Formats: sequence, structure tokens, C-alpha cells
Amino acid sequence: MAAPSSCLSRIGLAGLAVMGQNLALNIAEKGFPISVYNRTTSKVDETVERAKREGDLPLFGFHDPETFVNSIQKPRVIIMLVKAGVPVDQTIKTLSVYMEKGDCIIDGGNEWYENTERREKAMAELGLLYLGMGVSGGEEGARRGPSMMPGGSFEAYKNIEDILMKVAAQVPDSGPCVTYIGKGGSGNFVKMVHNGIEYGDMQLIAEAYDVLKSVGKLSNEELHHVFSEWNKGELLSFLIEITADIFKIKDDKGEGYLVDKVLDKTGMKGTGKWTVQQAADLSIAAPTIASSLDARFLSGLKKERVEAARIFKSGGFGDVLTDQVVNKEKLIDDVRQALYAAKICSYAQGMNLIRAKSIEQGWNLKLGELARIWKGGCIIRAVFLDRIKKAYDRNPDLANLLVDPEFAKEMIDRQSAWRRVVCLAINSGISTPGMSTSLAYFDTYRRARLPANLVQAQRDYFGAHTYERTDVTGSFHTEWFKIAKGSKI
Amino acid sequence: MAAPSSCLSRIGLAGLAVMGQNLALNIAEKGFPISVYNRTTSKVDETVERAKREGDLPLFGFHDPETFVNSIQKPRVIIMLVKAGVPVDQTIKTLSVYMEKGDCIIDGGNEWYENTERREKAMAELGLLYLGMGVSGGEEGARRGPSMMPGGSFEAYKNIEDILMKVAAQVPDSGPCVTYIGKGGSGNFVKMVHNGIEYGDMQLIAEAYDVLKSVGKLSNEELHHVFSEWNKGELLSFLIEITADIFKIKDDKGEGYLVDKVLDKTGMKGTGKWTVQQAADLSIAAPTIASSLDARFLSGLKKERVEAARIFKSGGFGDVLTDQVVNKEKLIDDVRQALYAAKICSYAQGMNLIRAKSIEQGWNLKLGELARIWKGGCIIRAVFLDRIKKAYDRNPDLANLLVDPEFAKEMIDRQSAWRRVVCLAINSGISTPGMSTSLAYFDTYRRARLPANLVQAQRDYFGAHTYERTDVTGSFHTEWFKIAKGSKI
Repeated sequence: MAAPSSCLSRIGLAGLAVMGQNLALNIAEKGFPISVYNRTTSKVDETVERAKREGDLPLFGFHDPETFVNSIQKPRVIIMLVKAGVPVDQTIKTLSVYMEKGDCIIDGGNEWYENTERREKAMAELGLLYLGMGVSGGEEGARRGPSMMPGGSFEAYKNIEDILMKVAAQVPDSGPCVTYIGKGGSGNFVKMVHNGIEYGDMQLIAEAYDVLKSVGKLSNEELHHVFSEWNKGELLSFLIEITADIFKIKDDKGEGYLVDKVLDKTGMKGTGKWTVQQAADLSIAAPTIASSLDARFLSGLKKERVEAARIFKSGGFGDVLTDQVVNKEKLIDDVRQALYAAKICSYAQGMNLIRAKSIEQGWNLKLGELARIWKGGCIIRAVFLDRIKKAYDRNPDLANLLVDPEFAKEMIDRQSAWRRVVCLAINSGISTPGMSTSLAYFDTYRRARLPANLVQAQRDYFGAHTYERTDVTGSFHTEWFKIAKGSKI
Repeated sequence: MAAPSSCLSRIGLAGLAVMGQNLALNIAEKGFPISVYNRTTSKVDETVERAKREGDLPLFGFHDPETFVNSIQKPRVIIMLVKAGVPVDQTIKTLSVYMEKGDCIIDGGNEWYENTERREKAMAELGLLYLGMGVSGGEEGARRGPSMMPGGSFEAYKNIEDILMKVAAQVPDSGPCVTYIGKGGSGNFVKMVHNGIEYGDMQLIAEAYDVLKSVGKLSNEELHHVFSEWNKGELLSFLIEITADIFKIKDDKGEGYLVDKVLDKTGMKGTGKWTVQQAADLSIAAPTIASSLDARFLSGLKKERVEAARIFKSGGFGDVLTDQVVNKEKLIDDVRQALYAAKICSYAQGMNLIRAKSIEQGWNLKLGELARIWKGGCIIRAVFLDRIKKAYDRNPDLANLLVDPEFAKEMIDRQSAWRRVVCLAINSGISTPGMSTSLAYFDTYRRARLPANLVQAQRDYFGAHTYERTDVTGSFHTEWFKIAKGSKI
């Protein structure tokens, strides 16, 4: 479409890598005229080309920041989709000089929430508004309808609520996958935990795959069918769906299936790490998410692993320890249950992490509403999220998803299968760190009496850290050493 | 002893809580005249009293900072033992105004290593030297001989090396438990990881206790004997010894044993948390240490746990799921092996974390030397550390303790027992998060091919993150979605 002459664009978008291009095209397609800008101007032309090709959409390209900013109606709203960190600061600097009081910049990247809070303050001094908005859904989601988590200035949110509502993924009976998250960096924080949960989901699926393939000896064809079947039931989700897809794809460079040629090294970008660090900071146990991060770290040590495998093989045992004959049907059903139960634990951890931060920061986040906007558009979208939403609808103060009556029942129903799968994996010498750590989380959380009394006794023994008692209130210290050395049993 | 008239003290110590008092008395006992100071002056008098009582030791008390500083020979060295954070800055401020070029302050607390580096820089501007020195051993260790981890100014270290060598724990054939760690905050960092490892050790012992008690139905008397026996073999260590002691002690407020009356809530102070966060930062998997931190977090949720236990009991299963008859002797031996194997994994993680930081910071830390100075004095002291020292003597560039020939053999010998214990715990419904996560670490690390290929394929599917191949070098991207939707299996 030609550049607008008198009429101005409703919104602007800066940063035209694939995500940015796709989100801009999505916005234009929903009927909101949009101006786009990128430092490398070929990206601008590329986007304009695509807008033409994909339906003559109202998208207007600009090669310099000033005309770009001036092409947007006031109060101006500009979404940035650039790399987190320094590039965000640079883009803000470039654009803000042309912006006016009441205008707003929205960071759509995976930014550390404190950076957003710092920028919101700096922008406020210039009279500008600021939002940190997590956007999930990958390239496809950005184009077709992502899940968006805007946090920061409520005034700024209100200025573009109509756009976000239309651009977001639409879920029947549940509405658009966007809501005002809360103040400050809450939008970024929630997106960070979303990504942590995504790490957990992917790890649990990888473990299910490993058990089915390494112990159950399922072929890729069989794996495709298993995941396709699973995607019709309680596990229905984007990640299960694409997993089923992956097992279909033949290698275009040789024999067999592509998945078998993909190197077993997983990359990462930071949000998983932050999630684990924040969990530690807030005293929230999030072992499932942590195990997925560790699995990525260890996957990266390919050379060391190959060497370790050689050493232990020569020491008398191989990669996979046993060649057990298993009942495939039963195994598949057990693994499905184990995956589902572990997933509940992972989400319980993520949700409790968000709540702890919300309390610390006074964000007043609504956990059920977060589950709702994750039902569509984003990478962790799943039918399962509706159950989470309902759990928080039933009881917004739910201490843990595990004790919601519906989830508790599901855990009880699945725990035997789950224990079987984890023990089978252990005895086969393959690790299921996510499933086993989730099980340990469950068995720890549901235990009235833990052996933590011994740890506290030790701490009091060597460090005089004191202890509480089960029968009397107060803080106690015992001279364990003196008494022990002076007594006989 | 009366205040010195003409002759000056060799060293000073500020901060006279129990640790500070004990370290000061230890220094004095080794023949180094010491001046002591505390803001609350009653602590000064208390310490002077103790010095008299404990052998007329050359310890001199001061009620004001100026005379305290002036009572020390130049170049002055003052050890601070105050709470980490703001109190350290305050103490530095109080003392440094009276100090002169070449004088040195040593922080003996559990300080965040970056704070030490900040202070070292600030002190250098005043011409003063600075050391951050982790001190482990608790109150008893401080008095009898701790393990000390001084890092920072090498010049400052040299000024007091003679004192530290005498004050430290002495291990036959291995020397005093102190060495110059390295530059900057390396002393604090190493002490932090030491504490993380300590968390792991305590958790693994608690799990051994739990399995023996809850599944094996061992009494406290039996537990005392088991841990006493263990303390004669490869598990010989301070923590096993005090655990044996703890089971001996009767409740002085009622019937039975004290350990059963200690509330199952474990406190913590920060170093475990930092260790987990640093591991994430440095891409080091440290799941055993992380599981011990999570266990402490979950132990704190006593009310929630009691409620969860009630819900799951009413749903049909109790705290402990089975009442299996086990062979006690066999179980005890299995648990011993599991504990030892898991411990190796935990130390492998801690050592690799230290190495990663050393590389990042250019500290050039010697892992074998660290194992040596942990052999005595500190909380994790154990005969086992000598094996670690020897492993690094054999190969300073050892990728992981697990692949040292001796440790690899020990792992192979113990893995069956270890798998039995973890599966027994899982089937009994009691969690052994440390032992099971260590096992997952082992089975992941020694595996040439992990299911990480699937995770990377998923990442490329939804985020175009690309992947490597097993057969061809390079970075690849596949249009998984398009191919999958256009193909049939």
C-alpha cells in the first residue's frame, strides 16, 4: 500500500526481524494502519513487499526514524521488537527524541523485568509512557495471533487495548489471549515464567520420547501415532502437536527420519535461567523447570558425554542398561500418565513463582487470568490450561495446584503409572530428570513430616542455629556435642 | 591478660559474636597477641574474661575503635567477623579512618563475592589492602582450627600467612587447612560453593535417614549404630559423625529421643541460594545442590504439607505408601552405597561450578588444593576429600569427577544399590530428591545420545532457532510445519 498522505497510521512497529514483520502484518490485517521502521532499511522494503503480497495490507514503511514517528497518530504508540538489552535502549533513544508527551513505547521482547522498570521511570521523566509486553507464539503466533502479556502503564495499555484484543489469538468461550497483566515489569516477569514452564514441558516430552524409544523401542512412525493420539486427549497442546509432526519428517539429506539426525544439543536464550534464579530468590521450589535447564546444560557437553559413555561402557555397562521386554500398550499409557502428572507439578511451581513475585512486588496478579491468556497463541497453549483457570476460579487463594480437588484426584489416579515409568527408566539407566524431580516434588509437598528435622538438628549442632519443636512453641538450642560425648546409648 | 603497654598486638579482630570470640581465642592460643573490639562493649569484656579463663591468653580488649586500631603493629591486619552486607561496610568505615597505608582488613564472613571485590577496590583507593576469607567449621572449628579460604590481595595474605597456617585445622600428611585461594572475591566464592556442597551433604544424609526410618523401620538406636559404623568407612566425615551423635540424644522435655521432637523445618542463610543461582549463570548443572535448597524451601511450608497430606490421605493414600518387608542389613548397605554415589555427583557439580567461575574470572583456582584444605576444620570435612584431591592430582584438567578412573569404578560398583534405593523410595511414596536427581545427573552425563535432539527440533519448529546435525557440520533450519502438514506417514 502507498504511504499515507494526510491520514496517519494508528500504530508503529520498529524492529523487523521475522517476529516483528509478522506482528506488524497481523496488526495491519486486523484493519489498523501501521507504520514500520528498521535500522537496516532493506527489512523495511521486505516488510512492505510482504504486506502487498499478503493482501494489500495497510502497512507503511519508513527509512528514517523521524518520518516514521511523525507518520503515527497521537498519542503515538510504537511497539519495539528488537533484541533484549542494549538494542532496546538504543531503539528507545533513536525514537524518543521525536516523540511527545503522552506517546508510548512498548517493548515486545523477552526483557529482564527490572530493565523495563528502569526504562519506564526514565520515560516518565520525558512524559512518555512505557509497556513491557511479553509476546509468545513464535513466528507463526505473531502472524496469526499470539498470546500477549503487557505490563506497565495502564494508561498506555488502554490506548491500544482495542488493537491487542483483535491481534491476539482468539479462543472460543475464553476470549482474546491478552489482558493487562499489572504494573512495572510484571508483563516481562510473567512471560519469563511462561518460558520457564515451556522449558519444563519440552523436557518432559523429551523424556517421554526417550522412554518410549529407548525402552519401548518405538519407531518414529509409532511415536508419531502415539503423540497424535495423545493430542486428542488431556495432553492436547501445541507442543504435543508439533512433536507428532516432527516424527513424520524424513531426512532430506539421507536415509531415515530427520529427528534422528538432529544433534542432541539444546540451545537456550536466558529466560529459563532467569526463572530458576528467581525461584531461588523467592524461596520457591521449581525443580521441574530447573531440571529442564540442567538437561540443556548437559546436552551441550556432547564431547564429554561421548567420552563418559565410553568410560562406563568399558567399565561394564552401556548407555541403556537393560533390554527389558515391555508391554508397549501398557508402557505408552503409563508414560502418558506420567507426563501429565509431572506437567501438573511443573505448572504448580510456575504459578507459585508468579504469585510469590506478585506478593513481593505488590502486582496483584490474577493467576487464573494468566492461565486463560495462555490457552491460545503461545507455545504452551493447551487444553490443560483451562483446568488451571478453573482451579483458580474455584479458589483464587489455592496454595498449590496439587491440592485443588480436581488436580488432586488426577494425581492420585496417575501416581502408580508415574512411579512405574520413573523406576523403569532408572532401572534402564536412562534418566528422566523432569519426571523424577516432579515426583519428588509431589511426594515432598504431600508429606506432613519430612526428614528436615535431622537437617535442622545438624544445623543446631554445628552452628547453634536453633530449632523449633513439634510439641512446644519457641526456639530451642541444645548442646548436642557435649551431651553426645558424655552419654552412652 | 592486661593491655599491652609498649608492645603492640600482632593482629586485631572486630566483631565478637561466638565465631569472632572463638577465632580470636584460637589466634591468641597459637601465640599471636591479638586486640579485639566490638561495638557492643560487653562482648569485649566477655571475650577478655574467656581469654583469662581459657589459659591467660594474649588477648587485649578495646572499647573504642581508635585505641583498638592503634594497639596493632604495622602493617596492621584486622579480621572482621560481622554479618554480611551493611554491617561489613559500617565496620570498614569505623576502622579504616584510623588505618594507614599498607594496613589490611579481612572479612571473615559469608559475603557475596562481588561485595568483596567492590570493597577491595574502594580500600585500594585509600592505600589499604583487603581480603575476603571464607571461614568454615562453625563455632567449634573457629576455636579449635577452622578451614579458611582467603582471597584478594596476595600481599595482605603474605602478611598473615604465618598466623593462618597455625590457626587453621591441621591434617596429618596434608598440612594446614588454608591456602591463598586467588584474586578478588575468589575466597568468598569458594566458601559459597563449600556451603552449597554442605547443603547437598546434609540433604543426602537426611534422605538416607528417611529411607532407613520410614521404609526400614530402624529405631534411633539402630540409626545411631548405622551412622557410627558408616563413620568408620568411606563415609567418614564430620556430618556423619554428628548425625550418629544426634540419634543418641534423649529428649530433656519428655519421652523418647530429641530428634523426633525437632520440627521438620530447615532454615537457611543465603549461600545455598547463591550457589544455585551462580550455577544457572555459569551453565553448570548442579541439581543435587539445588534439590537440597528446594527441600529446605518445601520444609518451610509445614502447614501446607500437613493440609496436602490430609487431602491425599482422604483420597486414598497415605504419607508412606507401602509397608514393605525389607531385609534391614541389605537395605542399610544399599543406602550407604547410594549415599556415597550421590555424594560423588554433588561434589562433581560443586567442583565444576568453581572451575567455570575460575575460568570466567581468570582466578586460576586449583581444585585439588581446595579439596585439600577442606579435609579438616570445615563442616564438609571427610576422608572422601582426599580421593578428590588425588583425582585432581592425577589429572588437573579432569572434565568431571565421575570420569576419574577411581571414581568411575566406585560409581559402577554402587550403581545397582543406588537404583534399588531410589526405586524403593519412589514405590514407598517417600521422596529422595537428592539421591534421585544425582542419579539422573549421572545417567545424563554418561549418555552419548540424549533426547535433546527432540527439544532442539521443537525449538527449530516454532522459533527457527536452527539445529546442528550428527552427520554434517553446519547450522540447519527446516520448515517442519510446512513439510509435516503436506505429508502423510
